[in-house]
Amino acid sequence: MLGGDGYLGWPTAMHLSAAGHDVAVVDNFLRRRMTIESGAVSLTPIRSLHERVAAWRELTGRQIDLFIGDLVDPGFVEDLFRRVEPDAVVHYAEQPSAPYSMVDRRHAVFTHRNNVEGTLNVLYAMRDLAPAAHLVKLGTMGEYGTPEIDIEEGFIEIEHKGRRDTLPFPKMPGSMYHLTKVHDSHNIHFACRVWDLAATDLHQGVVYGIHTDETALDERLCTRFDYDEIFGTALNRFCVQAVVGYPLTVYGKGGQTRGFLNIVDTMQCVRLAVENPAEPGEYRVFNQFTQQFSVGDLATLVQRVGDEMGFDVVVDTLEDPRIEAEDHYYNAAHTKLLDLGLRPHLLTDEVVANLLRTIEARRDHVALDPIPPRTRWDPRR
Amino acid sequence: MLGGDGYLGWPTAMHLSAAGHDVAVVDNFLRRRMTIESGAVSLTPIRSLHERVAAWRELTGRQIDLFIGDLVDPGFVEDLFRRVEPDAVVHYAEQPSAPYSMVDRRHAVFTHRNNVEGTLNVLYAMRDLAPAAHLVKLGTMGEYGTPEIDIEEGFIEIEHKGRRDTLPFPKMPGSMYHLTKVHDSHNIHFACRVWDLAATDLHQGVVYGIHTDETALDERLCTRFDYDEIFGTALNRFCVQAVVGYPLTVYGKGGQTRGFLNIVDTMQCVRLAVENPAEPGEYRVFNQFTQQFSVGDLATLVQRVGDEMGFDVVVDTLEDPRIEAEDHYYNAAHTKLLDLGLRPHLLTDEVVANLLRTIEARRDHVALDPIPPRTRWDPRR
Repeated sequence: MLGGDGYLGWPTAMHLSAAGHDVAVVDNFLRRRMTIESGAVSLTPIRSLHERVAAWRELTGRQIDLFIGDLVDPGFVEDLFRRVEPDAVVHYAEQPSAPYSMVDRRHAVFTHRNNVEGTLNVLYAMRDLAPAAHLVKLGTMGEYGTPEIDIEEGFIEIEHKGRRDTLPFPKMPGSMYHLTKVHDSHNIHFACRVWDLAATDLHQGVVYGIHTDETALDERLCTRFDYDEIFGTALNRFCVQAVVGYPLTVYGKGGQTRGFLNIVDTMQCVRLAVENPAEPGEYRVFNQFTQQFSVGDLATLVQRVGDEMGFDVVVDTLEDPRIEAEDHYYNAAHTKLLDLGLRPHLLTDEVVANLLRTIEARRDHVALDPIPPRTRWDPRR
Repeated sequence: MLGGDGYLGWPTAMHLSAAGHDVAVVDNFLRRRMTIESGAVSLTPIRSLHERVAAWRELTGRQIDLFIGDLVDPGFVEDLFRRVEPDAVVHYAEQPSAPYSMVDRRHAVFTHRNNVEGTLNVLYAMRDLAPAAHLVKLGTMGEYGTPEIDIEEGFIEIEHKGRRDTLPFPKMPGSMYHLTKVHDSHNIHFACRVWDLAATDLHQGVVYGIHTDETALDERLCTRFDYDEIFGTALNRFCVQAVVGYPLTVYGKGGQTRGFLNIVDTMQCVRLAVENPAEPGEYRVFNQFTQQFSVGDLATLVQRVGDEMGFDVVVDTLEDPRIEAEDHYYNAAHTKLLDLGLRPHLLTDEVVANLLRTIEARRDHVALDPIPPRTRWDPRR
């Protein structure tokens, strides 16, 4: 578990541990350090990783090993692989924010170095020290952008001038962060072709939700929950905004359509990938989401459910700080994980209501300053 | 002219200067430093960049400005753009060798950092300091790999499930070096989409030849000529091998087919791109080569011409140190530069004979040690 202290990494570590796997988590606390820099704290009262691991052991009797270090440091990575001897490598350990990567040149280069070099170091360590291990890498649906054709899962069969080939699906990513994920995908694909590594690249949609079966066991096990402009994602942000009476921040026309999934389905998907590994030399891509929504749809949903619960929810339309299609075709395949047994938890009124209630219990901890968007894709405009 | 001291950069600087452009060259002498590391020296007696610039001024009266620094250093890049205020940025300044990038993890990461971060720094400097300038970036035909369908120039119209879009041509690069060029292409495309930069990405084939109109003016102006396994390319290597009686090093079946062009056509192509700039916001790709050959075809050609000249040329078949298709379909479009006026200098017996004669005059300087391939794509095999 590379990146075992983040929003998804920590719940995934517990989920795999609960499923009977021996789990070691690795983190350099980049996510917590970025939070210090931006001033945006988690809505949930997260414990240190050491406390989390201790609480998990106390509650379940299961041990999660802990390694603190940076994947950009090759010595650390080699030492890690020698000590852990992994069968599977679940890799969340990247700078995960598009706005963060777009702040300025320095943040763009940092995101490149952190994500791409970290993953390169992992690939070389796998080649030399764990060639039979299965890499489960977190990518993003944002790698594809918003083409006018249906999005397939990683590859597309192209017929062209009377010939035919199945090739990587063309990528049109929308931020420096998304670009690094595209670079990773190309690098991992190459490593599979040339070194016979086995990899599953999970092109994940936008995740929402606050609790998994494991985080709900004890408050000490909760995962972080972000609602600021840098690390918060659409639905999570809207729910916080609804609870505190902040007008929902829809960017532009709100027609931006993306794949979404519940955090409990992320747990399922990663476990399904780990337990059904790719073959040696195989690079496979699963589109990891369960439903498509436009940003405007989500705002309307949160407004309706929020109003029914007595929140007075206003939807605001802000100038889009990003440069993106605000109204576009979007239809992405997502059957491979269903074929492996994924049982989706769809987004219902009840799911939104639960999220709003959970947030309401922490409403006094919400800071308003980090909510409005400040990072512009083109600061000259 | 970023990378103005290399095999192609220096002749291009002179060519653009001769065409009436005011040229500033930038280099950090990486190429010369890598040569020190590998022990493989240029067959031609290259002068220092300072001597070259002085000789050019003495012979033509034209000034080429000189800036020494590293594009990975953002302060240097910003200072450079402030002082030069370029209309066009010709960017050769990358680690150019596939085998070098495949030596080990360290060389792969270095190639990523040098190429991708350097280009990112250039893109940000253009955005902030020269937004109207035109980027002419050297990419490579190797970005495409060897798909079963015809290769188009950067983009392909795909019809899929009743819908249609023109998208980036899928890339399957064959080395860490080629991967960095793919990453650059995605990053540059993004910069054009988001910041309205204008860019031409020259996906260049394998260049052969030793002289251009400008290098032939005076021995002090000659460009480097490499024949070692790391920096030498197929045809140039074969010609040196033929002259010194070293069996031609064909890797594997020799069916590897690529686009090739004469160095004098590289001069034309870059000038045509500079003088016919892309529009603001436009990212265009030109496939820059004039003819396709298989490695086996070239070995046969060099053998025949060499034998006629009295060299005793033997063709050897070595186990392929790379992991690549050794016999495959290959048909790549290359009409856009022809449409702009490129007049190709095709590969004739006379061209090969001239190359052999030029090399013969320096045959006593050829070292045999750096010729055989040592860098394996998978060192475990």
